[in-house]
Amino acid sequence: MEIIFLGTSSAVHSKERNHPSIALKAFGDVMLFDCGEGTQRQILFTKVSPMKISKIFITHYHGDHILGLPGLLQSMSLHGRESKLTVYGPHGLNGVKNAIYSLGYCAIDFPVEFVEIDSGIVEETDEYVITAQRVRHNVPTLAYSIEEKKKPRFLREKAIELGVPVGPDFGRLHNGEEVEVNGKIIKPEQVLGEPRKGIKITYSGDTRPCEEIISLAQDSTILIHESTFINKDNTNAEEHAHSTSIDAAYAAKYSNSKELILTHISTRYGEEYANIMLEEAREIFENTRIAKDLMEIEL
Amino acid sequence: MEIIFLGTSSAVHSKERNHPSIALKAFGDVMLFDCGEGTQRQILFTKVSPMKISKIFITHYHGDHILGLPGLLQSMSLHGRESKLTVYGPHGLNGVKNAIYSLGYCAIDFPVEFVEIDSGIVEETDEYVITAQRVRHNVPTLAYSIEEKKKPRFLREKAIELGVPVGPDFGRLHNGEEVEVNGKIIKPEQVLGEPRKGIKITYSGDTRPCEEIISLAQDSTILIHESTFINKDNTNAEEHAHSTSIDAAYAAKYSNSKELILTHISTRYGEEYANIMLEEAREIFENTRIAKDLMEIEL
Repeated sequence: MEIIFLGTSSAVHSKERNHPSIALKAFGDVMLFDCGEGTQRQILFTKVSPMKISKIFITHYHGDHILGLPGLLQSMSLHGRESKLTVYGPHGLNGVKNAIYSLGYCAIDFPVEFVEIDSGIVEETDEYVITAQRVRHNVPTLAYSIEEKKKPRFLREKAIELGVPVGPDFGRLHNGEEVEVNGKIIKPEQVLGEPRKGIKITYSGDTRPCEEIISLAQDSTILIHESTFINKDNTNAEEHAHSTSIDAAYAAKYSNSKELILTHISTRYGEEYANIMLEEAREIFENTRIAKDLMEIEL
Repeated sequence: MEIIFLGTSSAVHSKERNHPSIALKAFGDVMLFDCGEGTQRQILFTKVSPMKISKIFITHYHGDHILGLPGLLQSMSLHGRESKLTVYGPHGLNGVKNAIYSLGYCAIDFPVEFVEIDSGIVEETDEYVITAQRVRHNVPTLAYSIEEKKKPRFLREKAIELGVPVGPDFGRLHNGEEVEVNGKIIKPEQVLGEPRKGIKITYSGDTRPCEEIISLAQDSTILIHESTFINKDNTNAEEHAHSTSIDAAYAAKYSNSKELILTHISTRYGEEYANIMLEEAREIFENTRIAKDLMEIEL
């Protein structure tokens, strides 16, 4: 699994930080979270293949989070993409879709499904579950978590002891199916170890500190949390419905997350501002990093 | 006067080349020609102030030429711009405007005037004239020229000889006004030298080779011409209604332009392709350069 930060600024970008976007390579897929202007150019500087992006999750429809969508979709089409792409987002997505398709001579000749969602499970497979959660910004905004489903260990010795022949029945049991051995039913729980927690990544979108993000992020391996301002600019954060570094750190602490990555950094005051931010957060939550454009995290 | 190439790719951008946009600093103004995605980020790497851009001239509404507009306008607003901006473009501009304003929570709180234009003079002041000309692409497309009006030299000795007192009457005559000296009318043509040609810059937009661009570019100081393909890919150029390096070179030659700058370079085959392009053009029109992102030309 790999997280690639494509853009880490807030509404005002800088030479160092492009508008928000995060790529996640996981489960044979590439997923994008938000898509600020210039995301497709940032992708050129990574190992991410834009043609492999299968899902885009939008947190909300402020320009800095969506203005890369029209260009990315048109470029995919120009490169001959045929496979479907799904764009998820909160209420208002159909309006965004209509604007994308009416912005000049828009050429998007492959299927793009736009799915308006609310809090709840967005997608669940045998391997993972993606959950959306409404958070508290000044427009409808969703945070997202993606959690790996990790199978319990298969107790091979125990299976042999119970008479299960080495072969395909091992796989069936590991996948949660019962098997019959010499007229006797063997249940998965007889040959599986303790439940194991998979990797969980949570991305806050833009939000004020709130219970909803703490609840969604519970026990995350990595919480990627917006941190637009330093503590001193708390009034600014409140006015624009954002979080400070301290807010982000408490969200990590109270959600029992393992690691915190600060992103959506105000660039108005330069990179020194980001350093202050990091120090502030670490006083509350030690295992904190600050995102930088093109930073990659392997899990 | 200064020309800054903000983006020099065609529809497919690369690490080296962003989507098309050219800034022109002239006559105390900044004007933008086309505005591909990421233009506002490119501006950060130049001395251009986005707040000083007063006019944007769009050649046509293919995504690579316009997708930087929504973000640029929103950023101007975020930075508190109050002064009016005018966007000029061919038929279809109102549709583009509507899409820009309906793409998510669009915040543009300063006056932007969108003016649909056709071939002819777009703007004329005492200092310059901007002309648009329909060219031949696969959608309605305009090329633009901007020509400095240079006053003829003021023949000081001649004026003194005619009895004009040294002072404000000199300025009046130089500005084309008659003055009265001791009851005698002195006409400007009595004290002005030969007409002088000012700087003229022509930008082709996307076009097939055609008479229209040659006519618009007549006697240009600099002709900035699209050159999407090398000669070998002429069929491609024809199919997509573009020009080759050879086409651009002939346009420069037949329009009697002084210098040719090739831009809108296909990046599909890497930078070596651009080098071939340059060599090909120079065989026909020696004084040719190839545009690079962030290249600046002072005139």
